[in-house]
Amino acid sequence: MSEFYRDRRVLILGGLGFLGSNLAIRLVECGAKVSIVDSLISGHGANPYNIEPVRGRVHVNISDLRDHQSLSVLVRDQQVIFSLAAQVGHLASMQDPLTDLDINCRCQLALLECCRLNNPLARLVFTSTRQVYGRPQYLPVDEGHPACPMDVNGVGKHAAELYYALYDRTYGLSSVCLRLTNTYGPRLSLRGSSRGFVSVFLLRALMNARIDVFGTGEQRRDFNYVDDVVEALLLAGRHEQLRGQVFNLGHGQHHSILEFLELLQEHCPVRYRCLPFPEDRAAIDVGDYYADHGKFTAATGWKPRYDLKTGLTKTVAFFRDHRTHYWDPGHDPDVRLPHGLFEVQA
Amino acid sequence: MSEFYRDRRVLILGGLGFLGSNLAIRLVECGAKVSIVDSLISGHGANPYNIEPVRGRVHVNISDLRDHQSLSVLVRDQQVIFSLAAQVGHLASMQDPLTDLDINCRCQLALLECCRLNNPLARLVFTSTRQVYGRPQYLPVDEGHPACPMDVNGVGKHAAELYYALYDRTYGLSSVCLRLTNTYGPRLSLRGSSRGFVSVFLLRALMNARIDVFGTGEQRRDFNYVDDVVEALLLAGRHEQLRGQVFNLGHGQHHSILEFLELLQEHCPVRYRCLPFPEDRAAIDVGDYYADHGKFTAATGWKPRYDLKTGLTKTVAFFRDHRTHYWDPGHDPDVRLPHGLFEVQA
Repeated sequence: MSEFYRDRRVLILGGLGFLGSNLAIRLVECGAKVSIVDSLISGHGANPYNIEPVRGRVHVNISDLRDHQSLSVLVRDQQVIFSLAAQVGHLASMQDPLTDLDINCRCQLALLECCRLNNPLARLVFTSTRQVYGRPQYLPVDEGHPACPMDVNGVGKHAAELYYALYDRTYGLSSVCLRLTNTYGPRLSLRGSSRGFVSVFLLRALMNARIDVFGTGEQRRDFNYVDDVVEALLLAGRHEQLRGQVFNLGHGQHHSILEFLELLQEHCPVRYRCLPFPEDRAAIDVGDYYADHGKFTAATGWKPRYDLKTGLTKTVAFFRDHRTHYWDPGHDPDVRLPHGLFEVQA
Repeated sequence: MSEFYRDRRVLILGGLGFLGSNLAIRLVECGAKVSIVDSLISGHGANPYNIEPVRGRVHVNISDLRDHQSLSVLVRDQQVIFSLAAQVGHLASMQDPLTDLDINCRCQLALLECCRLNNPLARLVFTSTRQVYGRPQYLPVDEGHPACPMDVNGVGKHAAELYYALYDRTYGLSSVCLRLTNTYGPRLSLRGSSRGFVSVFLLRALMNARIDVFGTGEQRRDFNYVDDVVEALLLAGRHEQLRGQVFNLGHGQHHSILEFLELLQEHCPVRYRCLPFPEDRAAIDVGDYYADHGKFTAATGWKPRYDLKTGLTKTVAFFRDHRTHYWDPGHDPDVRLPHGLFEVQA
């Protein structure tokens, strides 16, 4: 991988966030010339401390994707562009649907236009979400599953995927879309309005606070450790033959929410109670989900290297080591922070 | 139909356009209280003369859908809202993709939010397009056909459909989407950047100018006369059991482009030549298309009453009677006007 990325000019949109910063660190290790664009929107997961290990070795540009003028300048001369900046909250997408549309869909179209006009040879990698499928009609979900999104987030992400495919086909602007499942690991945003249940549960366990589980806790999910997702992103940026397509990530092993809590309990004291779904969450609940990632594996050889047990061990250790930068032990988690199951950091 | 619409408060977004004005005239006949919102965007098909037959009997409000503040006021107290305002040009959607997204997708989401907050009991009817299907994988195309749009217009319209379904399911905001095929008839916009081939051919035939056909002219299409589409819209606004669904319109008879020209020749002198597709049109060409409208017929009893021969006769007669308001005989059609096959007024 280093061979491909060494000295390559790489732009990461959303590079101060969870995924983006882990990707930036790995790319610097590979010898790439990394630029980051981030607008540090409050609650969206960006944290300047995330790139501490590569401070001074990446270029950081603070600007918002909705500023299309800046974007048209920033994309120039980049060889690989990872489009990771997103509004990831599912409930948040229902509460502020136009912002979700603007960031997850309109900005992606603007990015494609910027590249078409200013950098048509760039290679684009877009992170989409399992949310485009909606409530699974069968399991595991493969890429042939109909797109029936249950929330505003899923609709906008799906439209963005179609724009990427369209620009690839029509203008030869090379791109690939990865549909992510629940991703976790170091630098996950533990606070903010768009957190998924992994963030919520992790923060509360670290703080020794009771966890509220909506429903029975029997819902099943698959989980990708962030290093595996970073590896997938690097493969997606490298393999030209993937262009114009969408691929699931996922994990052959899936777990119920309660099983997740049991694994977490090996590291932190976990207290929880099960509550009925609040109405707004029930309306966009997708039930069980886990993905078939066979298409991506067949195309690239990618397989997840970390199971949930190992990944959680590494994740908890990271957050214990860096607590002051990610969670405030003096803070009462029962106050102010929303929490629940469906705002999944996709 | 009059029984349902008499004294009903009906709002038509895009009511000065081709479809909207024909619908407004019919609704006034039914005794409805009709309000029109239109922004008269140049080239998008609006023409104040379109509502001449009901002048003084409809309320016209000039405002743009992108002005969400006005929209939130205008939707109040309306019982049925027809959302017809659109950017309909397929090539235009590629040339100015963000405008297409804003009007066809973002404004629809804004409209849904306005109704959710200000008029949750309204009944919404949205006109979508066959363009969401892309290049047909089988014919005739039914609603189960995958959505694989070939242009920006199709992506945005498809996302809008998903937002409508989502708001119906999640918030109980009643809506129905109709996917229109080629629609023609009196008040069709003969000029402007977003015209479909029917407009282009009709204008040039009326002006005795040579018609350029891209490709062999053997591509097949189905055509709905506007009165049939208006009838379908009225049914869609009335039948509550259609809510949350999408339906094709279409016509059991389909014709090649050359057959269309032969029928037109019964009324006007037609001269044409076949040319290779220009590159930009070839890229978004969908080939043959005709729809299966059986789902809508089964649900409502709707059937097209006009065949193409009859519809064209009525259409040509209308434009001959109202030439000064729709076409300028002194104008040289070879200058300035784009023309071609795929900018279909959906």
